[in-house]
Amino acid sequence: MEKPHQTEILYGIHPVTEALAAGRRRFFEIHVASDKTGRRMDPISRLAESRRIPMKNLSRRALADLAGTDMHQDIAARVTPFPVSEWSEIIAKNATTPGKRAYLLIDSLSDPHNLGALIRSALCLGISGVIIPKDRSAAPTPTVSKTSAGALEHIRLARVTNLVYAINDLKKEGVWTFGLDAAGERSISESDLTGDIAIVVGGEDAGIRPLVKKNCDFLCRIPQSGPVTSLNASVAGGVAMYEVFRQRQTTRPA
Amino acid sequence: MEKPHQTEILYGIHPVTEALAAGRRRFFEIHVASDKTGRRMDPISRLAESRRIPMKNLSRRALADLAGTDMHQDIAARVTPFPVSEWSEIIAKNATTPGKRAYLLIDSLSDPHNLGALIRSALCLGISGVIIPKDRSAAPTPTVSKTSAGALEHIRLARVTNLVYAINDLKKEGVWTFGLDAAGERSISESDLTGDIAIVVGGEDAGIRPLVKKNCDFLCRIPQSGPVTSLNASVAGGVAMYEVFRQRQTTRPA
Repeated sequence: MEKPHQTEILYGIHPVTEALAAGRRRFFEIHVASDKTGRRMDPISRLAESRRIPMKNLSRRALADLAGTDMHQDIAARVTPFPVSEWSEIIAKNATTPGKRAYLLIDSLSDPHNLGALIRSALCLGISGVIIPKDRSAAPTPTVSKTSAGALEHIRLARVTNLVYAINDLKKEGVWTFGLDAAGERSISESDLTGDIAIVVGGEDAGIRPLVKKNCDFLCRIPQSGPVTSLNASVAGGVAMYEVFRQRQTTRPA
Repeated sequence: MEKPHQTEILYGIHPVTEALAAGRRRFFEIHVASDKTGRRMDPISRLAESRRIPMKNLSRRALADLAGTDMHQDIAARVTPFPVSEWSEIIAKNATTPGKRAYLLIDSLSDPHNLGALIRSALCLGISGVIIPKDRSAAPTPTVSKTSAGALEHIRLARVTNLVYAINDLKKEGVWTFGLDAAGERSISESDLTGDIAIVVGGEDAGIRPLVKKNCDFLCRIPQSGPVTSLNASVAGGVAMYEVFRQRQTTRPA
């Protein structure tokens, strides 16, 4: 008899579609709303059939009970948990592309919506790997897969005990660490982000924790003005990753 | 006897603080959790006292009932509704600063969290005014004030019947309109955004509606890569507004 797997319920069109595309989770069954047909489901049905994943019908209410939310978009799948990477694996995997590495470190972010938005931006803007703390951080749950529009399914993400150790590992690899901080000494747009770098984004309220901040090579601010002085954490992170992407495109035309 | 006012319940530390600071809403009373003391409330108490706004104590549960949410952070205020601006007022107010105008037009955005995040970015990144459609759009509710971290209280925002008419008004004023579109012919980072411009951001799913898109002067994409091809609407808008701010700083050093 096969050993039982730990499973979780992934829900929503994008998470299920992207998890099937990424091929990193094992699928046990896919549940769809009984009356659900149409082109949004067709690609999922075809993939499920070709991989012999059982498709089952459920009422919308039963889907909501299964997913633990009404935001299921008529689909939920029982799958293995998100495949968290080892931090050492992420470093090793990128060791062959020096000069092109860009990591995202996320410190003490509590809102799964912000974590999902940052992971979505990381995937869209060419980030090599995402690192979050094991404690005091939103975790890579099905909610985060949903709020990332399925981007979580493709990203390499490690959970570490101590972000400071991760920063020191990065230093040894020749990666410069840029912490986003409203009081940072230089603007992100005036910083050279074209080499091997890591962006550190802090939590919603208190930003980057003092010890993590102290270990960053540079503290940078996003240039801004006005009476409410700070961008949302996921927008600030998105802007910083865009700036990295923009500078690399400008200095290295394809 | 004074004519009764239409009122709404603003909740959360930032919305109440920023609404007091902005001075655009009339306050009738402020409710705080009975056991709530400490430095986050002190500035609010002082302002309330100086303006003779009654402060009342309520249980957390009664606050939740009043605010219609648990996200009240121990404070809720009865105030006049958000002061929506006339579109013509916003244009007139900015007519004296040609060459420095930057508007944000938001088409068919349904999620109040995304609307709040965009308004927060608009305020931080020097936008002259925000325009949203009257129909098929999240409205400037207390939820949006909360998700904007109170930025809504300071921003000039107009609701128009037809965004196409607003774009044509802008054309007459010499303002160029840049629609954000994944299939746009040029990258936002290669577009000259230093003059009088408006950024158009579309809804979460379908982007900018076809007729609105057709009336934009340019369609621009945010440079990006990877298997999930689009940024979250509020991040995309934030990146575009940052690019406007960055280009203006670079070309016009203070």
